[in-house]
Amino acid sequence: MFIRNTWYAAAWPAEVGRSLLSRRILDEPVLLWRTNSGQVVAVADRCSHRRVPLSLGRLVGDTVECGYHGLRFDPAGRCVHIPGQADIPPETCIRAYPVVERWKTVWLWMGEPSRADESLIPDLWWLDDRGWTGANGYVHLNANYQLLVDNLLDLSHVSFVHRETLAGPPEEAEIPVTIESDGTMVRVGRWMLNLDPPPMFAAARGGFPGKVDRWQLVTWRPPATVVLDVGCAEAGSGAPEGNRSRGISMWSNHLITPETETSTHYFWCYARNYALDDGAVTSVLRDGGYKTFLEDAAMIEAQQRVLDSGRGGPAVDIRIDEAPLLARRMLGERLSAERAEGTAPRRARA
Amino acid sequence: MFIRNTWYAAAWPAEVGRSLLSRRILDEPVLLWRTNSGQVVAVADRCSHRRVPLSLGRLVGDTVECGYHGLRFDPAGRCVHIPGQADIPPETCIRAYPVVERWKTVWLWMGEPSRADESLIPDLWWLDDRGWTGANGYVHLNANYQLLVDNLLDLSHVSFVHRETLAGPPEEAEIPVTIESDGTMVRVGRWMLNLDPPPMFAAARGGFPGKVDRWQLVTWRPPATVVLDVGCAEAGSGAPEGNRSRGISMWSNHLITPETETSTHYFWCYARNYALDDGAVTSVLRDGGYKTFLEDAAMIEAQQRVLDSGRGGPAVDIRIDEAPLLARRMLGERLSAERAEGTAPRRARA
Amino acid sequence: MFIRNTWYAAAWPAEVGRSLLSRRILDEPVLLWRTNSGQVVAVADRCSHRRVPLSLGRLVGDTVECGYHGLRFDPAGRCVHIPGQADIPPETCIRAYPVVERWKTVWLWMGEPSRADESLIPDLWWLDDRGWTGANGYVHLNANYQLLVDNLLDLSHVSFVHRETLAGPPEEAEIPVTIESDGTMVRVGRWMLNLDPPPMFAAARGGFPGKVDRWQLVTWRPPATVVLDVGCAEAGSGAPEGNRSRGISMWSNHLITPETETSTHYFWCYARNYALDDGAVTSVLRDGGYKTFLEDAAMIEAQQRVLDSGRGGPAVDIRIDEAPLLARRMLGERLSAERAEGTAPRRARA
Repeated sequence: MFIRNTWYAAAWPAEVGRSLLSRRILDEPVLLWRTNSGQVVAVADRCSHRRVPLSLGRLVGDTVECGYHGLRFDPAGRCVHIPGQADIPPETCIRAYPVVERWKTVWLWMGEPSRADESLIPDLWWLDDRGWTGANGYVHLNANYQLLVDNLLDLSHVSFVHRETLAGPPEEAEIPVTIESDGTMVRVGRWMLNLDPPPMFAAARGGFPGKVDRWQLVTWRPPATVVLDVGCAEAGSGAPEGNRSRGISMWSNHLITPETETSTHYFWCYARNYALDDGAVTSVLRDGGYKTFLEDAAMIEAQQRVLDSGRGGPAVDIRIDEAPLLARRMLGERLSAERAEGTAPRRARA
Repeated sequence: MFIRNTWYAAAWPAEVGRSLLSRRILDEPVLLWRTNSGQVVAVADRCSHRRVPLSLGRLVGDTVECGYHGLRFDPAGRCVHIPGQADIPPETCIRAYPVVERWKTVWLWMGEPSRADESLIPDLWWLDDRGWTGANGYVHLNANYQLLVDNLLDLSHVSFVHRETLAGPPEEAEIPVTIESDGTMVRVGRWMLNLDPPPMFAAARGGFPGKVDRWQLVTWRPPATVVLDVGCAEAGSGAPEGNRSRGISMWSNHLITPETETSTHYFWCYARNYALDDGAVTSVLRDGGYKTFLEDAAMIEAQQRVLDSGRGGPAVDIRIDEAPLLARRMLGERLSAERAEGTAPRRARA
Repeated sequence: MFIRNTWYAAAWPAEVGRSLLSRRILDEPVLLWRTNSGQVVAVADRCSHRRVPLSLGRLVGDTVECGYHGLRFDPAGRCVHIPGQADIPPETCIRAYPVVERWKTVWLWMGEPSRADESLIPDLWWLDDRGWTGANGYVHLNANYQLLVDNLLDLSHVSFVHRETLAGPPEEAEIPVTIESDGTMVRVGRWMLNLDPPPMFAAARGGFPGKVDRWQLVTWRPPATVVLDVGCAEAGSGAPEGNRSRGISMWSNHLITPETETSTHYFWCYARNYALDDGAVTSVLRDGGYKTFLEDAAMIEAQQRVLDSGRGGPAVDIRIDEAPLLARRMLGERLSAERAEGTAPRRARA
């Protein structure tokens, strides 16, 4: 059960070129490539003839040629050549998907194509702004994507899962959060004043002279885009009041795309607006990101295995679950609305 | 659903000796060995007592001794010894299968034993004739055997799957075939005149001076024996009229045996009637055969995975599918007839 | 279907320390550790909050802290800390299991805790007596535990499965056994007089001058404790009459604990009352034990695979199955009684 009329991150731009990238999204096989003019396009990764993946074939100009019998398909999914016959039956055409490259991200629309409105792409301007630079990565997760959303909307886990990167001193675990929602998003955040800095932030700045004031401000938008405004500044230097000049600040971006009901594409990026040309800082953030998000993956995958067993029993909710539960309710409502509306296409044949 | 009252290739002769060969055929475990006199025999690979595979035991004379409790079975499946007791209950006997070694191939009859008529073995005399020699191999395929029959009855795939061995120039892909059937077989074939030779045929002859006339003449007999009369001769030297003296000719043999509904034993052999003692030619054909048939395997296994997913949707048929679809119809009729007749034994207990 | 109101071997003592040992027992995840005072304790290996395994967390004093959100649980399964909140809802508590360390074995009670009577632990005094020493091991078996009980209650398999360790000359296979039962156990045994000694016993004594009198006396107690009084003495030296002074004698211990319906924890130990300080003898028995019991494992796992296939058909019983079948009947009765009584707790939520 996935929301379909929405944009999902499908790839980082460097992953898509003049070769065939096959990626399962919302449990459908999708084939991505760039045309000769550089545009990213996407069609079903299934030949209509004998149903083999087109990704086993090859690019011929702007078309993909099936590796088994040589049928060719253009970026609109039209079959444009069948060896040994001149007429091309319309049922040989395959599904094409709207694709947009924006904010240095490839976005895919799996829903009704006529509703693929580019203005619905989440605004992540800092991913494509000259004043900002990023360290990004991709993690494949053997777990349902909502478990990752839960994880990101719960700040308390940082103290236990990420001891060596993001966790500050133990007392952080007890600091409460504030939660807001206007029905289109959930925001959860907290300030942690006058504490030792967490290891990765210290490393990403070259250290702090003493204690820091730290912020973690999370925004989730359905179905699965989570951005965190996070940072640290020297304690008492005015960060809570808006002066971040004695600290560092980052957008921690989490673009989450269901692969199947039990697996997820996890695109993450730390974007910063300082030390833009300092490769060492980029390395600290990339290495720290992988370490951190693989720690999440290990925990979430363990959780999924218990769910898969059908034997974990009911989970007991506690106070820290308030924001994740709110997001799950909103997601459920949106899913129901989309189903009631009947505008989401059924799963494509491909 | 398999045809049972027929001979299937079970092994190449060199695979069967004074050791225990376990091979699953029509989804039954079969145990093959040679008696002291050299005869190949086959029984169910299951002890009747605690159901362990007899292949974990050992040969004792012409009998197989179970590795767990020492029961012994003769080539007719009779239990001939039970440690610790003198009486041998008849229900300890196991199934034996008719086996014949012919055309340098071990043939097994999985149906009603009384109907195991040796004259029904397909005539492949060139596999055991002094004027011919062969390069053979075995490929295990994780796919239903009919996908491989489809593949062999469709010549168009050669241009796309086998670019480096069997494909001639691109225009071959457009050359139509002729199809015949007398109700006992399907024949599909074509002549391709005055084209560059395909790489493997060039290598197997030591080259051609120029263009060639090429033939591909396929005969399928149910359920799954496919032989191809294939070759090339110098263009214009009279091959279409019957004079093959300025070229090379081969029987490409494909003996296909279902292992399970989704896996297949694929015995193949290139038999030739020239350069009989030239090991280099044998190597060209053996290496080319493995390369070629593993390319088919990769494509067919991808097709099977889509079928297994239950999500590939219907396949669209095109012109090149005419011969494969004809063979599938004939196979379906024969399967229905066998079931209606009720002469095929149900799956053995073993 | 497991008997629950009974003690099962859960670990060898050296396996449990100040780290977290996760072991599935009767298909429930169990977490074992030692408190600071050295006591072995056991709770469900599932956090009540988000159901992740507590074994991914860490010990904090005598409690285990969940690695995801920091909840802490004491050895009685009580939740004693939730980050960010002072009140602890009772439903956050998890199941704890009675544990006893006795006979150098960690015993676990999976049934109704109030019935966990230590006097029900099988008497294996030789495992913790100054006059005895042991060579022990652990084998994980991908098979139902009853297949292993069957194996141990059938002495005939020794001649076929264990040719290189325990098998004597071939005529042993024909020597009958005597069987007794008083309704609480099954005993099966035999004496084998004036035969060549089996290889492992010869090695464990430094050889015998000639033939031996050999005994194999097996006692099974439900559900799955099997001890064998086994040994060899010089032929004619009076062993059958009770004088074992010219031979060696061992208790071969088999503590069998279901992991799941199709997998088993197999704790084994050869205990001897001679050459207590001779490490070479310990090595002979440990190496011989692993070789022997891995041979059983290979056979039993093959048997399980046939059972899993649902296609092996019925097994034919023969004379040597008398003792295993008697034990299966007793086990079935005890299982029925426990279910009728309704005293076994249903599977814990965890």
